[in-house]
Amino acid sequence: MKVSIIAVGTELLFGQTVNTNAAYLSKNLNLMGFSVMHHFVVGDNPDRLKESLAEAFKDADIVITTGGLGPTQDDLTKETVSEFMGVSLVKNEIVMEELNTFFNKHGRKMSENNLKQALLPENCTPFYNAAGTAPGFAIQKDGKCAICFPGPPREMTWLFENGARQFLEGFLDSKMYYRIIRTIGIGESDLETILLPLIDGQTDPTIATYAKEGECSVRVASQRKELSEAKKAVIDMIEEIDKIAGEYIYSYDDDELKDVVVSMLKEKDLTISSAESCTGGKFAASITDVAGASSVFDRGYVTYSVDAKVSELGVDRHIIEEKGVVSAEVAMEMAERAREKSGSDIAISITGYAGPEADEGFEPGDAFVGYSYEGESGFIELHRNTRRRDWNRSFFTLQMLRAAYMIVKSIK
Amino acid sequence: MKVSIIAVGTELLFGQTVNTNAAYLSKNLNLMGFSVMHHFVVGDNPDRLKESLAEAFKDADIVITTGGLGPTQDDLTKETVSEFMGVSLVKNEIVMEELNTFFNKHGRKMSENNLKQALLPENCTPFYNAAGTAPGFAIQKDGKCAICFPGPPREMTWLFENGARQFLEGFLDSKMYYRIIRTIGIGESDLETILLPLIDGQTDPTIATYAKEGECSVRVASQRKELSEAKKAVIDMIEEIDKIAGEYIYSYDDDELKDVVVSMLKEKDLTISSAESCTGGKFAASITDVAGASSVFDRGYVTYSVDAKVSELGVDRHIIEEKGVVSAEVAMEMAERAREKSGSDIAISITGYAGPEADEGFEPGDAFVGYSYEGESGFIELHRNTRRRDWNRSFFTLQMLRAAYMIVKSIK
Repeated sequence: MKVSIIAVGTELLFGQTVNTNAAYLSKNLNLMGFSVMHHFVVGDNPDRLKESLAEAFKDADIVITTGGLGPTQDDLTKETVSEFMGVSLVKNEIVMEELNTFFNKHGRKMSENNLKQALLPENCTPFYNAAGTAPGFAIQKDGKCAICFPGPPREMTWLFENGARQFLEGFLDSKMYYRIIRTIGIGESDLETILLPLIDGQTDPTIATYAKEGECSVRVASQRKELSEAKKAVIDMIEEIDKIAGEYIYSYDDDELKDVVVSMLKEKDLTISSAESCTGGKFAASITDVAGASSVFDRGYVTYSVDAKVSELGVDRHIIEEKGVVSAEVAMEMAERAREKSGSDIAISITGYAGPEADEGFEPGDAFVGYSYEGESGFIELHRNTRRRDWNRSFFTLQMLRAAYMIVKSIK
Repeated sequence: MKVSIIAVGTELLFGQTVNTNAAYLSKNLNLMGFSVMHHFVVGDNPDRLKESLAEAFKDADIVITTGGLGPTQDDLTKETVSEFMGVSLVKNEIVMEELNTFFNKHGRKMSENNLKQALLPENCTPFYNAAGTAPGFAIQKDGKCAICFPGPPREMTWLFENGARQFLEGFLDSKMYYRIIRTIGIGESDLETILLPLIDGQTDPTIATYAKEGECSVRVASQRKELSEAKKAVIDMIEEIDKIAGEYIYSYDDDELKDVVVSMLKEKDLTISSAESCTGGKFAASITDVAGASSVFDRGYVTYSVDAKVSELGVDRHIIEEKGVVSAEVAMEMAERAREKSGSDIAISITGYAGPEADEGFEPGDAFVGYSYEGESGFIELHRNTRRRDWNRSFFTLQMLRAAYMIVKSIK
């Protein structure tokens, strides 16, 4: 069953509003088993909306609109969609009643404009709106179905969950299930290459890779008559993927790396501390982004200068002088001293150049991540060929999380 | 001049990704003086993309696509748009060279897939991509112009700012100039109210206020035949705004608060340190986001637990026991001890509850920012009525920056 979505609103074409409604609806419709064919965005213009409706119904069975149902003059979606579907507008007593109650409760007087909201397409399925004043509705005619929601995301999602979802379920004879796997340490094209034997010729479950800020995700989706069948097909396929790419996978359920690290630390009853130079606190901030981080993290050091590294952490000044402040030795010293000083089980450190300028023979993007646990310490050398300070700092932070992940994973 | 935008990517139709590219492009195109007619989203499907191109060119002079330029099998935008525009693909030596350099530097082997990226439409205007491997390009033929950008927002925005914006300016016969003023300490409706005498009836320059994460911006824009005229109109208007709202303005040039704080510290030859509890390093990370921060910031303490506050900073345990860990006294102690220990001119601290759970009679969003400079110390009490941990942590960090800004501003 094919669906397309039309968002109506000049504010979207001005870039003042991001079309999160289309993303919300698409996610939920896909999960239910619908295929979303197109998104369209048009301004508050009846002629363009009619053109988009015609275009959308070319290959969709159901067209959903968002926006343009409010009380003001430029809200013309209801009128336009009704005209397109060939139905007239009639006064709806339930909405009239609700509007009266709403305006009485808020001690406001109903305007002529608001009365417009009590008109609904004849024979439509109304979705009454407890989150606002504009009701949604579905018009079914000649094998086509048009569903109209108000634009404010809070109202749209409320109507979707309270009425529209159930209405839409009536159209389905198959169910969709999908899972998102997250990987780190492998690029998108390499990941696709090793998964090609599974991807090639595969129609269900489908396997798709996505690159995102130094990481790679894999979506495995199946659409079957029964949800249990779809679920089984996805889980079986994930097992196959695991055999090939298991070493790169850190989540089978679309969790972020920081969440996985904190929950593994909790599970294994371990604590972590940090000593940061070029990331300036971003690693500590990532760990403490996670609710409940206080049970695994109690302190971190931001030692930006040589003096800070020496006086706060107790890094040996001779090592810095001999090896240079950006060196494997200093990274390891930072981690060892941080672990010692904080009494944590694991410490992760970094020293490097974020840029934008090159420094002392190092390029921006060069750094050493240090780690220390159970008396063992080591380092990871990073080279990332960009002068973009923000990218380097995000990349460095992700690599510190990755180091933490590898260590926690390895501890029995 | 009319533009439409087509986003290509099944992940958008799955609702995994929100179409922020369309919002970014629309905002910038409108600011430049283009009219954005439609947004379309299609999956990775050449036939549907061709249909959307035909549809988009019905009323647009320029059609911009985002996505589908990557190295993998489902990336077909370049091939499809070229076919639609009737141009063939040829190998581009500059891109080939760049790809070679990229893969050599990263010590990775180029795959067959990556070679595909060196093909560009014949006679196109290429936009070389320093933010990734897929170049963008513009094809002009028979009065139509198609511009293709890669999908990752970081790459798309980079190409827009480095090449495409200038290319697009060639289509315009009037010039846009705008400046964005940033304020803090006043809400959007209050700001709009005091600026109303300037806003009312004003057609050029236009004045628009925008609320954004605890701050408020004002955009002043003018569109004139000559850039110099537009510039003068904007600067004159900013002078008027300054007379009314000057006390809230911290930047006349869309600088972020962290950049303003670091540059003021540099100018006044002052140093700053931090002691963070509930923000977990986000303040230090903000300051060190700024290139050259090392001349004003050399260390920060992330003291998440009571023990860390006592042993790392030397906060008096009795004060914590008597006043509670989230208290004005502890915030001030943290700042004083951090200043003492680091030897910095200014120290900013925070202790509070980020949430999502309430704790010890405090609600998430409650916090105390402490500050210390030249022997003076004080605190700011924060209440923000939300349980959203991420919102609270961002709000707290901004308020620490605001405290730093007020202090640095006050120091002669």
